[in-house]
Amino acid sequence: MDNLLGRINVPSDIKKLNRMQLKQLAEEIRKLLIGSVSKTGGHLASNLGAVELTIALHFIFDSPKDKIIWDVGHQSYTHKILTGRKERFGTLRTLNGISGFPKASESEHDIFNTGHSSTSISAALGLAKARDIKNENYSVISVIGDGALTGGMAFEALNDAGRSLNNLIVVLNDNNFSIRQNVGGLSKHLAQIRTEPAYFKSKELLEQAFNRIPGIGEPLAEGLNRIKGAIKYMIMHRTLFEELGFKYFGPIDGHDLNELIDIFSKARFIKGPVLIHVRTQKGKGYGPAEEKPHAFHNVSSFEIRSGETLNDKKDSYSAIFGKEMVKLAGEECKLVAITAAMPDGTGLNEFSQKYPKRFFDVGIAEQYAVTFAAGMAKSGLKPVFAVYSSFLQRAYDQILHDVAAQNLHVTFAIDRAGVVGEDGETHQGIYDLSYLSHIPNMSILSPCDYRELKQMLRYAVMEHNGPIAIRYPRGKGKVVLSDIKDPVTWHKGIRICKGTDVTIVTAGNMVETSLQVAATLKNEGISVDLINVRFLKPLDEELIIGSATRIKKVVTIEDHSIIGGLGSNVLQLLNRYELNIEIKMFGFPDHFIGQGTRSELFRIYKLDADSLIHGILRLLRKNKLILKDSVHGVYLGNRSKLK
Amino acid sequence: MDNLLGRINVPSDIKKLNRMQLKQLAEEIRKLLIGSVSKTGGHLASNLGAVELTIALHFIFDSPKDKIIWDVGHQSYTHKILTGRKERFGTLRTLNGISGFPKASESEHDIFNTGHSSTSISAALGLAKARDIKNENYSVISVIGDGALTGGMAFEALNDAGRSLNNLIVVLNDNNFSIRQNVGGLSKHLAQIRTEPAYFKSKELLEQAFNRIPGIGEPLAEGLNRIKGAIKYMIMHRTLFEELGFKYFGPIDGHDLNELIDIFSKARFIKGPVLIHVRTQKGKGYGPAEEKPHAFHNVSSFEIRSGETLNDKKDSYSAIFGKEMVKLAGEECKLVAITAAMPDGTGLNEFSQKYPKRFFDVGIAEQYAVTFAAGMAKSGLKPVFAVYSSFLQRAYDQILHDVAAQNLHVTFAIDRAGVVGEDGETHQGIYDLSYLSHIPNMSILSPCDYRELKQMLRYAVMEHNGPIAIRYPRGKGKVVLSDIKDPVTWHKGIRICKGTDVTIVTAGNMVETSLQVAATLKNEGISVDLINVRFLKPLDEELIIGSATRIKKVVTIEDHSIIGGLGSNVLQLLNRYELNIEIKMFGFPDHFIGQGTRSELFRIYKLDADSLIHGILRLLRKNKLILKDSVHGVYLGNRSKLK
Repeated sequence: MDNLLGRINVPSDIKKLNRMQLKQLAEEIRKLLIGSVSKTGGHLASNLGAVELTIALHFIFDSPKDKIIWDVGHQSYTHKILTGRKERFGTLRTLNGISGFPKASESEHDIFNTGHSSTSISAALGLAKARDIKNENYSVISVIGDGALTGGMAFEALNDAGRSLNNLIVVLNDNNFSIRQNVGGLSKHLAQIRTEPAYFKSKELLEQAFNRIPGIGEPLAEGLNRIKGAIKYMIMHRTLFEELGFKYFGPIDGHDLNELIDIFSKARFIKGPVLIHVRTQKGKGYGPAEEKPHAFHNVSSFEIRSGETLNDKKDSYSAIFGKEMVKLAGEECKLVAITAAMPDGTGLNEFSQKYPKRFFDVGIAEQYAVTFAAGMAKSGLKPVFAVYSSFLQRAYDQILHDVAAQNLHVTFAIDRAGVVGEDGETHQGIYDLSYLSHIPNMSILSPCDYRELKQMLRYAVMEHNGPIAIRYPRGKGKVVLSDIKDPVTWHKGIRICKGTDVTIVTAGNMVETSLQVAATLKNEGISVDLINVRFLKPLDEELIIGSATRIKKVVTIEDHSIIGGLGSNVLQLLNRYELNIEIKMFGFPDHFIGQGTRSELFRIYKLDADSLIHGILRLLRKNKLILKDSVHGVYLGNRSKLK
Repeated sequence: MDNLLGRINVPSDIKKLNRMQLKQLAEEIRKLLIGSVSKTGGHLASNLGAVELTIALHFIFDSPKDKIIWDVGHQSYTHKILTGRKERFGTLRTLNGISGFPKASESEHDIFNTGHSSTSISAALGLAKARDIKNENYSVISVIGDGALTGGMAFEALNDAGRSLNNLIVVLNDNNFSIRQNVGGLSKHLAQIRTEPAYFKSKELLEQAFNRIPGIGEPLAEGLNRIKGAIKYMIMHRTLFEELGFKYFGPIDGHDLNELIDIFSKARFIKGPVLIHVRTQKGKGYGPAEEKPHAFHNVSSFEIRSGETLNDKKDSYSAIFGKEMVKLAGEECKLVAITAAMPDGTGLNEFSQKYPKRFFDVGIAEQYAVTFAAGMAKSGLKPVFAVYSSFLQRAYDQILHDVAAQNLHVTFAIDRAGVVGEDGETHQGIYDLSYLSHIPNMSILSPCDYRELKQMLRYAVMEHNGPIAIRYPRGKGKVVLSDIKDPVTWHKGIRICKGTDVTIVTAGNMVETSLQVAATLKNEGISVDLINVRFLKPLDEELIIGSATRIKKVVTIEDHSIIGGLGSNVLQLLNRYELNIEIKMFGFPDHFIGQGTRSELFRIYKLDADSLIHGILRLLRKNKLILKDSVHGVYLGNRSKLK
């Protein structure tokens, strides 16, 4: 069989294919998706579901003249393959490779960068208004999943779009995401449309028939006329989208290229806002992903035949968190858990099964999740909201205004804190300290190993009162990192090893790195006073000030942006005590951090052990700490990568 | 006539009144509201609209056992008057007085603190879930305006509430707010319900009549049956709220106590989520406020007879901003302006009239506003989003993820930056630097006078490229503060006066205060190197470092939280250059800042000129700068308030 994908270099090449060939193209793309993602990892299920949808969009519309915006963006792989990136597709999500999300810097076909949910209709309406102000002529299309539609921001945009006269096409890619999670009235509404399509599809037919009903087609008593008006009115306003002012089409079979092409070619010429409701299946065409779409939402590499992933999910901070939550729930009946559409990712699956009445998956709705938690805390429950660092950004105002200003006891279990790696700049969790540290009443912790995570979670739920956040990284950690068993006490840090030449202040996953640094430096004759602050806010002033005034050389190490991070808070602490002590901060600089493995990113930004050792040695050398040439010579000799 | 209000000490006292007396009570409350707010200032129009609604709620429900949550909270005055705070009502919004918003610390009847919009349904559902988990029995009521309903967070909560089985009452206080602004499909929908109530009110009637229509009441052809089913289905799903799973009642006349009492007494016993749609009139019962409800939204003191406010709105940063926007729009056709329901407050009224096609009031929807702006910037327009500092908090993620990560040219005109005074802790604009400074690509400016605001706005729109924020305070400023006319240049600050004893680094409204400080210190023989950085990010490194290394004593002064503010950024700058120079930061400490006039707050937090002078003198004294005893003696003698 002819390889059709080989002929597609620009999206307009698709227009040369006939319907049969388009179908074949879809199969070729699926094969590429499965084969490639099985190696690189990535968002497989959603992409398998969007193959025909994407082909049909590019068949009808003219990208980049017509603008397609992919909500969240993790379903844009087929779009990438069709817009000149098929050769580079194997570099997906790798350092210097192509992104797993739309990136304007990568292609003119990636109109608007996405990553977080529910932004596409807002951006699309911005483009559409600009187009009309500038008297230009093209289509603007937002492709949004039913899951992303529960995000309030999507509603804000639907609401404004609904009254606008600007042409705008919203493609609702309904893959039952929110249904599986059983979240929300909206998903019920969509389910009704899907399961009783006759009531929603036959609008014109219905009206025609209606006018032919004896006794209704002609004027009778006034009461009847009023009823007729009322019924007509209601026929005109059937779906929620129509209530908001959209013209609604659907539901369409999202794997039937003919149906899709047909509706897109019509929608192109409709005035005003249009919503096209497309039903798709997550994981379509790959058995294991069809069976377990959530397991193939964001996968690491896997074996194609079995669908077995090569990654042990049980060995992760998320898994430890989930287990400890189950344990705590058994002891504390007031404990409740909240997730915003991430029961798998945050490790709460077991909790949700064991304690379904105390588990709340609110869908992609972080703002609501936080204030909902505040309400529960107000009533004496102990809510824990498990959420990724970069997604909690969306609830900054609610944390400050609804939780912290009332000093309510809500625990934020901040997963994926620090760089996350392959998902790149939109997902790096390196701002949570910056957006939480200045919030009054907030306590922030970070565990260095699994044991500390368990201790901290227990402390947060059982002992603390008030808003408290625990930030922990993506992936694996050590079970136990040191033999210091001190219980977690408010604002108390621990000294992991006592030294005399330099103070290292750190926390979380950087404690492990710092231990390596300290061990190497010890071999070189430099003794490190290593402090795991545990509490990033409030800091252990006594411990830090004590060490800093004794040694007078402080280094801070963090898996976080420097501005607003641990280092800057230690700096402010020393300033408050009017101590002019030299302090050097290691963390991420003031620009967006792209994709790569976490260890690649640590190396690039000089946060790996080798770079840190080098940096600290420079600092000490500058300070005229006498270093034997030989020591440093040996050191450099062993680490050729250092500049 | 008997004074009924005198008898109401706890809300249950209302239950002793008959319907006629309730009506009289409403009039008494209106009189108190008008009389008192004419002196203290406050949110008048919305409170006049909610008098009967509030009386009816307290007549039927038992606060604080039943929980009433006031969305935004500025309509809670009648609630405050009825719940034991009528004597203190004259202290509204003053230092140590009662708050203009619900405050749990003030009364057990204030169940959940509010201030920002659209939070109440989320909190209410949290309370309702907690109640049911704990097997308690009471009603939870959220009172939310149609304006607040456009905030996405409200939709997130409606969506989750719609599928819940928990009893919850949402009272939609529909005062045409969003209609006046003409924002959104939702407001259209509400307008349809209001103007064609027959279609929405007569549900049961309609169904009865329907069954009696010949040819529909009995089975005919199968097609007809299907039609009947379809029609019935649609009758069952009329309003958007019903689509989401609510039981809908309305529209109710919100000034008819009998109707209100009737519906609340029924709603109390209905299972599941209920939405009661109440129509009210903003400003009801006070002519000037009925005529111009927006002018009486948040008023300063006014003359009751004429309705004339005693405050000159034309002399304010907002007004200067608005004028300059009109001017710039004449020169730059790509300039567009966005507001989130604040055309009056942000000074954009004239712009909206002169350039209606380039003006967008998106309603209370800050998240959407920001990403909508990003979309327009992507298409080459130059959007300016005018917004209050504390309300922009809601769009933190969008600023970072949609604007900054794509380095888009969106201008944020951040009004009400710094303490705002009487609105208190929820509205203080003292966190914007903290939540913006760590965002890569962001530039942040602050003008010291009207001229600088105009210069900066012009710079931001006409010269800059990339995300840029201008923060300016509530109220008045000087037209011109100094005769330095340097144009605004990226990252460049200016030295206002050259000195040798201490460097003051400041910006914005604190430049005026710092000039006073410098003048007084000069009289005392201390010479200040006064730097107006203009750019809070990026800082003018050369200017600051130059001064700091020369003088070696730095003071920063800011109308902002210290954590993450100007001071901490200057501190980090000095650290980056490895300069151990003494620096003292003046700003707001790490707790929530309550209400009071701005000058009271500055005094309390030692940010007034007198306190700053005292603080700087202490710093210099400590540093053994020889101060003549007499100088300091005279100084202290003149300022008896200093500790």
